[in-house]
Amino acid sequence: MPAKPLYAAVEAGGTKWRVAIGRSPEMVVDATIPTRDPDTTISACVEFIRESGIPITGVGIASFGPLDLIPTSPTLGFITATPKPGWSNTDVKGRIEAALGVPAVIDIDVGGAALGEWSWGAGRTLGSVVYVTVGTGFGGAHLQNGRTFHELGHPEMGHITVEREAGDTFGGSCPFHGTCLEGMAAGPALLARWGRPGPELRNRPEVWDLEARYLAQAMRTYDYVLAPQRIILGGGVMQQPGLLQMVRDRLGERLAGYGNPPSNLEEFIAAPEFGQDAGLIGAIALARQRFEGL
Amino acid sequence: MPAKPLYAAVEAGGTKWRVAIGRSPEMVVDATIPTRDPDTTISACVEFIRESGIPITGVGIASFGPLDLIPTSPTLGFITATPKPGWSNTDVKGRIEAALGVPAVIDIDVGGAALGEWSWGAGRTLGSVVYVTVGTGFGGAHLQNGRTFHELGHPEMGHITVEREAGDTFGGSCPFHGTCLEGMAAGPALLARWGRPGPELRNRPEVWDLEARYLAQAMRTYDYVLAPQRIILGGGVMQQPGLLQMVRDRLGERLAGYGNPPSNLEEFIAAPEFGQDAGLIGAIALARQRFEGL
Repeated sequence: MPAKPLYAAVEAGGTKWRVAIGRSPEMVVDATIPTRDPDTTISACVEFIRESGIPITGVGIASFGPLDLIPTSPTLGFITATPKPGWSNTDVKGRIEAALGVPAVIDIDVGGAALGEWSWGAGRTLGSVVYVTVGTGFGGAHLQNGRTFHELGHPEMGHITVEREAGDTFGGSCPFHGTCLEGMAAGPALLARWGRPGPELRNRPEVWDLEARYLAQAMRTYDYVLAPQRIILGGGVMQQPGLLQMVRDRLGERLAGYGNPPSNLEEFIAAPEFGQDAGLIGAIALARQRFEGL
Repeated sequence: MPAKPLYAAVEAGGTKWRVAIGRSPEMVVDATIPTRDPDTTISACVEFIRESGIPITGVGIASFGPLDLIPTSPTLGFITATPKPGWSNTDVKGRIEAALGVPAVIDIDVGGAALGEWSWGAGRTLGSVVYVTVGTGFGGAHLQNGRTFHELGHPEMGHITVEREAGDTFGGSCPFHGTCLEGMAAGPALLARWGRPGPELRNRPEVWDLEARYLAQAMRTYDYVLAPQRIILGGGVMQQPGLLQMVRDRLGERLAGYGNPPSNLEEFIAAPEFGQDAGLIGAIALARQRFEGL
């Protein structure tokens, strides 16, 4: 039996890059590189892959954005205008391809993570899946038959409208929209509303009751606009014990039986399976999809 | 040159059915049938097609719902549970196929209408288009490369969350969610809030200012969740002169420069081209897509 191809996986984040080699969620080598300037960071990444001595067929990259993902664009695979110093207009995909001499595929981090969950995790076998992370911001991606269609435009799911919950007087923390979902329910909103970060609010039930209500509003909107078979809901904020079930309970009330509300909200709103490794595993999934048609 | 195939188009509505034959927006014959019980209505539809004497290759059906659109379902193409007396569990697709001896394709009305606009109207050449109608309710469909993916689940875009606009004390008219988008901004909400139907409110600028604000909220949510290149916004409520431009203006404020707000909101929020014929033209587009791969 001929050896199956191996791929390099790159999770390009704003504070660290992770690099690994493999062809499934179980990878053979793995490194973490602090994000510095593009030259230093990309060189360290490429050097790690080269020094592994493992022959690779391609590279999957799940990257922070904004990215140019338009196939016909001369700047496909570039990070475009970012507030991160030095990174605007960086050709992440092209520089990695040139240095390693193999083709690469790139998507935004949450798109890769969603594909990883679809390939091997909480979205397996489902035709229509939404993947959402709640942390310092919201990230979201929608997969239909395992495709994100991000080449046509990629969503900004955190900035949808929510309505103020009764008794909540918080002014919202989104610098663009004030009281949009991100402004009312992402990590910075928790800090601004309650004066402490999420992990220090663990024993304050009123915090999580309110958080669940806003998240349930968002789940309803995603459900009605995207009609997914499952929403995978993860990220730092979702580490709060019991929060996932509270979101399900409030969502049931919010749907009020309308549409095709899933009979089983435990299956409809699910935790991701890959947690902190979602981006890296997603990068492998991107490579498998592009180079093997998985 | 061999003759190109002709198709029957059926727009199956709750109050009337329209039937035509053609292969483009310009159709050769056209009839309107009042919606009675399924036997009477489907027979009249089939009879019209037969009596035209025009040989057809297939039928496209854009139908009221809810429909079973799951390809592997034994009840694919059935209207499922509907409050419309006598119509629950009606095999619209199968009965038309059996009576005419040709294959049919079916989608929900708004899915067909969206495809018609994508094929020949306001969505031409665009990879990602949202089509929304505002009338007695909201209907919405999202096309990616001309596909709705409704076989995976279809959206209920009218029931998303909106936030109450300043000064509005209306309690909302959605029987399920009260103050969701449909409850605040569809035709019945106009009637309930202002005491008169839309056409009798033409000269009341405060009515349309408020309506535009709610619609702009919805456009923002669709933009951020679906990332379309264009939103085609039509339906009876949008017949109000000037309303489309008011929605664009309010949307610009609501986006606040975040995401990839289109530089040209006149192109981003567009009127449909086919108006009252959208469903019929959409049914032809469904047939072309299914039987010719258009």
